[in-house]
Amino acid sequence: MSDSREIDPELDLVLERVVDVRPELLWKAWTDPEHLKRWFTPKPWETVECEIDLRPGGVFSTTMRSPEGEVLPANPGCYLEVVENRKLVFTDALGPGFRPKASPFMTAVVLFEPDGTGTRYTAIAMHADEEGRQKHEEMGFLTGWGKALDQLVEFAKSLG
Amino acid sequence: MSDSREIDPELDLVLERVVDVRPELLWKAWTDPEHLKRWFTPKPWETVECEIDLRPGGVFSTTMRSPEGEVLPANPGCYLEVVENRKLVFTDALGPGFRPKASPFMTAVVLFEPDGTGTRYTAIAMHADEEGRQKHEEMGFLTGWGKALDQLVEFAKSLG
Repeated sequence: MSDSREIDPELDLVLERVVDVRPELLWKAWTDPEHLKRWFTPKPWETVECEIDLRPGGVFSTTMRSPEGEVLPANPGCYLEVVENRKLVFTDALGPGFRPKASPFMTAVVLFEPDGTGTRYTAIAMHADEEGRQKHEEMGFLTGWGKALDQLVEFAKSLG
Repeated sequence: MSDSREIDPELDLVLERVVDVRPELLWKAWTDPEHLKRWFTPKPWETVECEIDLRPGGVFSTTMRSPEGEVLPANPGCYLEVVENRKLVFTDALGPGFRPKASPFMTAVVLFEPDGTGTRYTAIAMHADEEGRQKHEEMGFLTGWGKALDQLVEFAKSLG
C-alpha cells in the first residue's frame, strides 16, 4: 500500500496532520454516508446527499449546498482502493463500474496511519497536469480540506 | 464480479465469443508482456513494447508499430481489477498509481469464463459518452479486437 505516496509536487496537493483520534473512528466517519454528511463540507456549506458503495468500482458521490441554498450538482466518482481503517482511494475520473468520465479532475488518496493513540492523517489530491493542481490550489484545497479535517476530528471523537 | 457486465449499448462496445482454449492459457497470454506482444495488435501492425504491473493501480502500457515503421506513442494506463484467470479491468483514464489523465478514452473489461473445455471470452469497452463509443466503433473496434482474439487464441494454444 505504500506507492500511492509517491507524491509529485508539480501535480499533487497534500494535507498531512497528526490528530488525536484513532484510525478506526476516522474510517467510520469517512465510510458511512450519514456520518460523512456531518463533516465533509466546510461550514457554512453542507453535504446534503451522500452515496457510498465501499468497494473498488463502487460509487462515491456527494451533493453540496451553499448557505444561500444553491445546490451543486453531484459528480459521482468511484472508489479505487479500500483498505479497512488504513487507506481510501477514490476518483472522479471514473464513475461507478469504472466507466470513464469526460472531465476528470482528481484522484484522492487518504491514509490513516496509527500514531500513538492518534492518527497520522494524509490526504493527497492527484491531478492530471499542473493546471489541474493550480486550479485546485486556487479553489482553496488546503483551507477547505483543513477545515473539513477539523470537522472530521470533532465528529469522529463523538463516535468514540 | 458480476456487475461490470452491466452493459450500456449507447456507450459500450462488446465482443463475445466462445473459444476452444482454457481461461488459464488466455490469462497467461494477457498478463505476461512477452506473451502479449505476440498477439495483441492485429497484423501487420505489431506491439513492440509492453509494460505490465499486474495489480490495481499498476501500469499497463503498449507501444504499437505500423508495417511502415510508424510508432504510436505509448499511452500508459493502469489496471483496476485483477481476478486471476477470470477478469481483467484496465483503463486509460488513469495512469500508474491511479493518477487521472487529461484525455480519457475507455475502460476495458475482459472476462474469461470456463465453458466446457474452452472459454466464453467477453471484451467490453466502456466510454464516457456516445461520441467516444462511436469514435471507437469507427476506428474498427469489432474487426480489430476480433482479429486480435484470433491471434490470441492461436498463440494461447501454443502455451498449452
